Amino acid sequence: MSAEPGEHRPDPLADEFPGDKGCPETGRGLLAGISLPAAVVREAPLAHNLIWMRRFAEARGAHLAPHGKTTMAPALFRRQLEAGAWGMTLATAPQCRAAFAHGIRRLLLANQLVGEANMAIVAGLIEAGAELFVVVDGEANVAALDRYFAARGLRLPVLIELGIPGGRCGCRSAEAVLALAERVNQAPALLLAGLEGYEGVVSGDDPEGAVRAYARELVTAAHTLAGKGLFEREVPLVTAAGSAWYDLIAEAFHTLAPSQAFAPVLRPGCYVVHDHGLYAEAQRHLLAREGEAEGLRPALEVFAQVQSLPEPGLAIVAMGRRDVGGDRMPLALRRYREGGDPAAVLPVAGWEVVKLMDQHAFVRLPESAGDMGVGDVRVGDIVAFGVSHPCLTFDKWRAVLRVDDRLEVQEVMATCF
Amino acid sequence: MSAEPGEHRPDPLADEFPGDKGCPETGRGLLAGISLPAAVVREAPLAHNLIWMRRFAEARGAHLAPHGKTTMAPALFRRQLEAGAWGMTLATAPQCRAAFAHGIRRLLLANQLVGEANMAIVAGLIEAGAELFVVVDGEANVAALDRYFAARGLRLPVLIELGIPGGRCGCRSAEAVLALAERVNQAPALLLAGLEGYEGVVSGDDPEGAVRAYARELVTAAHTLAGKGLFEREVPLVTAAGSAWYDLIAEAFHTLAPSQAFAPVLRPGCYVVHDHGLYAEAQRHLLAREGEAEGLRPALEVFAQVQSLPEPGLAIVAMGRRDVGGDRMPLALRRYREGGDPAAVLPVAGWEVVKLMDQHAFVRLPESAGDMGVGDVRVGDIVAFGVSHPCLTFDKWRAVLRVDDRLEVQEVMATCF
Repeated sequence: MSAEPGEHRPDPLADEFPGDKGCPETGRGLLAGISLPAAVVREAPLAHNLIWMRRFAEARGAHLAPHGKTTMAPALFRRQLEAGAWGMTLATAPQCRAAFAHGIRRLLLANQLVGEANMAIVAGLIEAGAELFVVVDGEANVAALDRYFAARGLRLPVLIELGIPGGRCGCRSAEAVLALAERVNQAPALLLAGLEGYEGVVSGDDPEGAVRAYARELVTAAHTLAGKGLFEREVPLVTAAGSAWYDLIAEAFHTLAPSQAFAPVLRPGCYVVHDHGLYAEAQRHLLAREGEAEGLRPALEVFAQVQSLPEPGLAIVAMGRRDVGGDRMPLALRRYREGGDPAAVLPVAGWEVVKLMDQHAFVRLPESAGDMGVGDVRVGDIVAFGVSHPCLTFDKWRAVLRVDDRLEVQEVMATCF
Repeated sequence: MSAEPGEHRPDPLADEFPGDKGCPETGRGLLAGISLPAAVVREAPLAHNLIWMRRFAEARGAHLAPHGKTTMAPALFRRQLEAGAWGMTLATAPQCRAAFAHGIRRLLLANQLVGEANMAIVAGLIEAGAELFVVVDGEANVAALDRYFAARGLRLPVLIELGIPGGRCGCRSAEAVLALAERVNQAPALLLAGLEGYEGVVSGDDPEGAVRAYARELVTAAHTLAGKGLFEREVPLVTAAGSAWYDLIAEAFHTLAPSQAFAPVLRPGCYVVHDHGLYAEAQRHLLAREGEAEGLRPALEVFAQVQSLPEPGLAIVAMGRRDVGGDRMPLALRRYREGGDPAAVLPVAGWEVVKLMDQHAFVRLPESAGDMGVGDVRVGDIVAFGVSHPCLTFDKWRAVLRVDDRLEVQEVMATCF
């Protein structure tokens, strides 16, 4: 599979600034010609995950607005929309701008919109035709938004956030939600479009119970506001759900918020590529709760090469905290000989990443590895690593490679962090 | 200072993909019109640090090849060269390509060069006129490089790395260095240009003693190789030094490696913007060792806005792990009212960042903060945070703003990670 040394003679300046990391051509075979480390999304599990989540949401009568902050890859946003997503969720105004620039018209900014520069971005998007919702949780922000959007001659759809005591943003009680709804109704430049929540910050001994209770509280508050005629949208949104508890949120929405009265919107983000750590674990719990046998599959891997075998039992791999998320240590999945066949997978049993520096991983090799404690491992061997979690891996890359089962590059997916 | 609401009407699509984060225009006043969060480098401490390190190296007869991986900002590379740097150090082949594309001709790749795609990048740079050194620490890599560069009809200057037992890459003994030097001498496409080390991975109870011993060992090995006529460069390089122990390395080079025989090269990277954590601490030790009163000054800050004040004593700030390095929690330095005067600094005494999520910081406010435990704090207040360490903050940004004392943007510095 390998080219002869000297065969490739790329122009070193051919890659335009600033795309100098992981922006190769497509279709050059088993990651050949590609400077490693590189982040890779495997097509088969990606396609599976898109279908899986579509079915999951449809079965529960929920809209899907996947959180785009996970990947910030417009090529994946398009796949998510093609797989039936109602819109995309984003975390910041610049993220909304990037998504809109790539054709996403319905945007849920699942955060408070703060700062005139960020308000200007959102106002510009609305003027350009975006359907965009933002979140509010306090009077001062409501007043600032009303002032700004009135001056722009625009009306901004807002969702009130119900928070969790000890949690992150959001009103801390149903009473506070009600009072803020009345305040929004008095703000001519704002339009109360629904309620928003984020259950991912629950804590305590019984997180499952806490999420269920929170979901009920959110829907109850929505009914209260609807009963008082405070929503200014025919079918108000009720939205919550990160990547760990979306089944419980979907269940509460499905049973408590009839779909003719509310539009339930789920916002998981990590599902699209899943992971080998935090969310793999969350998924096991979810499958057990749902009684489902088949779940999401990990699609995101980082490929890197053994850089040095300096002493028995230790491999230094050219991949560091600038290449992978560090919530959990990356997991060695498979190994290949550079220039070899993608079907010829070499073992990594017992490999353990014990330390990450900025640009290096320290991998302990098993004692059984033979000669010098490294066995058949060679400098230059290519190792595929699973990561956790995906959000903090995607943001290390300006481009992520979508590959087929033979590790041929199908698409170079730019990110827009 | 603030514009009237509605005055700014930027085209939401005006920012070219993918530069959607932190790429504003320059010269618009106190960060006005700039979407926050944003990473900022203050000119005064930056200029101070450039001069400080130049003097430090000159006084010790050492060349400076600052580690460019810290910032990957060509605008800062240029400042470092203007301040007398001999060349730039980089961590990967794509980083070398990016630096060369921005005019840096002398490049020290302080890592093993592994993988044909990376070798192809380096070969292309040499063909294009770069003076480039790479590091080797093992026979297999030496053989692979010799094969590749011979096929390209090139000669690659290499430095042998002396490592530290239990450390990262590098030969584990003087004997191994000698044997590898003899091997390099037999490789027609390689040229032995010097010795390389990295003392930043010492451990144990007496790191200072360990660094001193390691520096002596490195210089001794250089003398041994020179005595045997193994270097293939008239004045071979002897290079080491990260951002914590460069004084001890410089001292060893100065006293043990006469400058007519060796070219000593120091490679600190973080000094250029310094930090408010790990390296601030390392610097205090260094100043104590050197008996110097005045050291480096922190120049890098991340500006972010209070997003929510959801409960007494808690502020949620719109800045997370995607915006700042997480070795230490960011340190609240100053606060400003949005649209206010940059000289009107509001207090942050007692503010403590207690948690970082991907896009949010949880800040505990002091109990003395008055009403609701938030005192005069308002949603929208702008907070300047100090960070640690700089490498893992720069890599979160596609552009970093260079500002003057009034926080006017002087330059938008692109990064090329």
